[in-house]
Amino acid sequence: MPYRAPVADYTFLFDHVVGLGQVIGTETFAEADRDTVDAILSEAGRMCEEVMYPVWRNGDLHPAVLENGVVRTSPGFAEAYGKIAEGGWISTSAGAEHGGMGLPLTVTTAVNEMMAQSCLSLQLNPLMTQGQIEALEAHASDELKALYLPKLISGEWSGTMNLTEPQAGSDVGALRTRAEPNGDGTHAITGQKIYISWGDNDFTGNVCHLVLARLPDAVPGSKGISLFMVPKYIPDESGNPGKANTLKVVSLEHKMGLHGSPTAVMQYDGATGWLVGEPHDGLKAMFTMMNNARLGVGGQGIGVAEAAYQHALAYAQDRKQGRSPIEGGTGMIVDHADVRRMLLTMKADVFAARAIALSCAVAIDMGHATGEADWTARAAFLTPIAKAFGTDTGIRVSEIGVQVHGGMGYIEETGAAQFSRDVRVTAIYEGTNGIQAMDLVARKMMDGGEAAFALLDEIEGFAESVRGKLPDLAEPVWQAAETLREATEWLIEQDDFNDRFAGAVPYLTAFARVLGGHYHLQAAMAAGYDSPRARLARFYITRLLPEHAGLLAHVRQGAEGLYALSAEDLAAL
Amino acid sequence: MPYRAPVADYTFLFDHVVGLGQVIGTETFAEADRDTVDAILSEAGRMCEEVMYPVWRNGDLHPAVLENGVVRTSPGFAEAYGKIAEGGWISTSAGAEHGGMGLPLTVTTAVNEMMAQSCLSLQLNPLMTQGQIEALEAHASDELKALYLPKLISGEWSGTMNLTEPQAGSDVGALRTRAEPNGDGTHAITGQKIYISWGDNDFTGNVCHLVLARLPDAVPGSKGISLFMVPKYIPDESGNPGKANTLKVVSLEHKMGLHGSPTAVMQYDGATGWLVGEPHDGLKAMFTMMNNARLGVGGQGIGVAEAAYQHALAYAQDRKQGRSPIEGGTGMIVDHADVRRMLLTMKADVFAARAIALSCAVAIDMGHATGEADWTARAAFLTPIAKAFGTDTGIRVSEIGVQVHGGMGYIEETGAAQFSRDVRVTAIYEGTNGIQAMDLVARKMMDGGEAAFALLDEIEGFAESVRGKLPDLAEPVWQAAETLREATEWLIEQDDFNDRFAGAVPYLTAFARVLGGHYHLQAAMAAGYDSPRARLARFYITRLLPEHAGLLAHVRQGAEGLYALSAEDLAAL
Repeated sequence: MPYRAPVADYTFLFDHVVGLGQVIGTETFAEADRDTVDAILSEAGRMCEEVMYPVWRNGDLHPAVLENGVVRTSPGFAEAYGKIAEGGWISTSAGAEHGGMGLPLTVTTAVNEMMAQSCLSLQLNPLMTQGQIEALEAHASDELKALYLPKLISGEWSGTMNLTEPQAGSDVGALRTRAEPNGDGTHAITGQKIYISWGDNDFTGNVCHLVLARLPDAVPGSKGISLFMVPKYIPDESGNPGKANTLKVVSLEHKMGLHGSPTAVMQYDGATGWLVGEPHDGLKAMFTMMNNARLGVGGQGIGVAEAAYQHALAYAQDRKQGRSPIEGGTGMIVDHADVRRMLLTMKADVFAARAIALSCAVAIDMGHATGEADWTARAAFLTPIAKAFGTDTGIRVSEIGVQVHGGMGYIEETGAAQFSRDVRVTAIYEGTNGIQAMDLVARKMMDGGEAAFALLDEIEGFAESVRGKLPDLAEPVWQAAETLREATEWLIEQDDFNDRFAGAVPYLTAFARVLGGHYHLQAAMAAGYDSPRARLARFYITRLLPEHAGLLAHVRQGAEGLYALSAEDLAAL
Repeated sequence: MPYRAPVADYTFLFDHVVGLGQVIGTETFAEADRDTVDAILSEAGRMCEEVMYPVWRNGDLHPAVLENGVVRTSPGFAEAYGKIAEGGWISTSAGAEHGGMGLPLTVTTAVNEMMAQSCLSLQLNPLMTQGQIEALEAHASDELKALYLPKLISGEWSGTMNLTEPQAGSDVGALRTRAEPNGDGTHAITGQKIYISWGDNDFTGNVCHLVLARLPDAVPGSKGISLFMVPKYIPDESGNPGKANTLKVVSLEHKMGLHGSPTAVMQYDGATGWLVGEPHDGLKAMFTMMNNARLGVGGQGIGVAEAAYQHALAYAQDRKQGRSPIEGGTGMIVDHADVRRMLLTMKADVFAARAIALSCAVAIDMGHATGEADWTARAAFLTPIAKAFGTDTGIRVSEIGVQVHGGMGYIEETGAAQFSRDVRVTAIYEGTNGIQAMDLVARKMMDGGEAAFALLDEIEGFAESVRGKLPDLAEPVWQAAETLREATEWLIEQDDFNDRFAGAVPYLTAFARVLGGHYHLQAAMAAGYDSPRARLARFYITRLLPEHAGLLAHVRQGAEGLYALSAEDLAAL
């Protein structure tokens, strides 16, 4: 089963939907001209096809294991990682001063998504490193930057995030890991961290852990948390990996999927760590790391959805079953209306989720380049949507992919089930999708809904402007945006945040559905009334977009009904 | 994590929603008085809690394996099966003349669902045997009946269904397995069958395969198919297992889940078989077997959903995370609105799906007891809905269960992921859910929609009758039924069946949503305006039922838009 990097889709989205032009028009990204971007996409796509995709199944068939305290990665992963690093694909957005390409995050988002398409478990390694690079760029001392950034950007070393402890998951403030000053500027880190993606490997010269811990004088809760760099090997005077630090991988989790990515329980026993940023201000640095990581994880979901779609389409074009229900059909199951419904749903949703993620990246880039508050607010508003809808799309689409395969979908050898199992975690890590939705309706609406209404104005404005040319598509998008506007107004009126939280998840999904309609409409407008893209838009707008109404009815019910049944009622019924 | 059989829910549904009274009021089921039914449910529930649930995890952790041609089942399965058989739980509906209890299928549906809750992979074994018993009761000669039925009903022997071949899945008519007359009344069966659930085991004295094959004079396609009984061991003169038949398990599939149930590739090499029913009429017998099996598979989905719900509820009541968002909260995650939304969705959907399945069983029982065409038509109409919505509910609810567990949900040790992986196949086997939906909008509407409209009349009539007492619940149910009626009328007007097929899946889901609203309304009415059941109904009707509108908008789009993009367009975009 071949895999093809969908380079042309990014190009189309860049030029006609999300507006990459404005990003590369800024001074900040002046070096990223259009030709460079095209070359980067093509090169990245080829690398994904030739280097990463061939090892994709290995991750599932031969999981990473812990042997005598050492992590052994899946066959071929070390070689593939070497080529990723060699090609400069660890972080195409890292700054030029430490050896990065300094490309817009918009481009990196596309590159990351292609890497997720071709091998999710291996892609997660550089994705973690990217988050670390961003956190160090923003918060580390010049000394730490000079020591770590070049090696992280080149891929010689990799990076991890250490937040979660057994008693502290979504509630990070409950963490207990301690940091005692050693008197020489370093700290002794002691504690256990869980769910550490790529906590160790056998192919980078060092593994650099960013660890949240408490200094002795820390206040309880999230305001007493500091961030430390704790490397597996302590760099010697020339910056090379020296003495082993007092930390270890205790065990690897046995997970539903993503077996190629070792998820470690890490033990720190007075391990030497260096403070990153100010004391007690670790959460801010961690949020820098997490924010873009959320967009990155959204892209993981989209990437798996794309790959699952390609597999399902290939299977449907190759699987004979019964008489064709259409004249001149191929005799393959792709002729069947219900199979087409599934394939078009997959394709239309991948496009919608991808456009949302890339729009979010454009807003981040523009905020970065212009410093304008509107862009920053838009980026902040779109991030939880990109994360949750991207990963929900990964789950939903890969699940449809299994169904397209029929009985073969349940047999592991096709790989259809692997997509479904691998992508499942993306709705959980980097903040569960429930947490994303709560963030959206609370923190991201502290502005009284300004960012939301600005998007809705844009959606309605565009729909009005093309009403004459695409009436059958523009009208339902405008109507859906208007219904969403009313629900948004209702949400903002709720002073008891629990009334917002009660409908947070359906609200986020509905917002994504409407955004998806808007981007499909833009695509249809750009490609022309009767183009394949307009036909795909028509499928989405007439068949998938209507879902928003039921979701928004749900949103407006508030919290009361959720507490009308006690936990005892729930157990007794 | 304890599991509790939800006996009280069946009792409530029997008495106040689906009307078991009318079933046990018939002469056919006169021996099944209300007390007997209660005793059966309690006994079955205890057996599930004490015998089956303890081996549930074993099925996943220690899959069935093929060793030197012999299937070794998971630890504890043989002992648990022994107790299932001993208790008479293989088939509580089998006729009394061969040792069965002759209970209504309604009761068996509840018993089967509890068995699926406690250990799906083991439950599948008797479920297959049940289908075989029904096929033999309806179509086999008296000689075959006398030989096989007592041993199948007692559980001494087990049964399988052999339909699928590599080139013949949903298109059964493409099968190639041959049956050559041996001259002594038996036939020599030769061919390969795949996806044979419980194709072999190490705990029954014989494994009885019902195999679809072609006689030498068979016409091509589905009209040339005959059904044969092909036992693993050929019974000797006294009816005991004698000489080994020339058949074997070639391999077991490596599946996404349900590892405790061996899924075999079976090879028949001139194996001795006995014709069941008339030559070339095998499909009719197989449909007898499959029809109730479809309801049974729907119950598998519901059972897993119930178990996943119980696990998620227990986890949510026991997992501390952050400050409680409500006054007087427990400090556990169950206090959070979004967690409650998830739990209530699970609970409300389990109830809806269960009510649909039991209503279907009641219709089957009433058709059987009264011979009235209206009941038979209702049973036929509800069967694909019960199958597809039950299994979709299993997938959706177990998926939410993983999410409630957060990071722990992705770790296999909690079992949350096992539910999700195990239940996935139920939407595929016994006819994919797409096939079920196509059956609903085509064959099950050959009556011009009579069965559909009879249900809608009943739903609207009930809503009207309780409008005064439960206006906030009755009105939306009535409205939803009316929208569904319009969509049904639209469907029936479509002479090109492909226009029906295009929206078949969303139509089936919408019909189930509306039925769910109806049964929740009945429950609310019976339990009283402010009862927990009415509150659950309010959750369902105000938050989940609105989904029907978007689905029905999808239904009315027809097939044209699905073919507007060619397969090449789909690959190129």
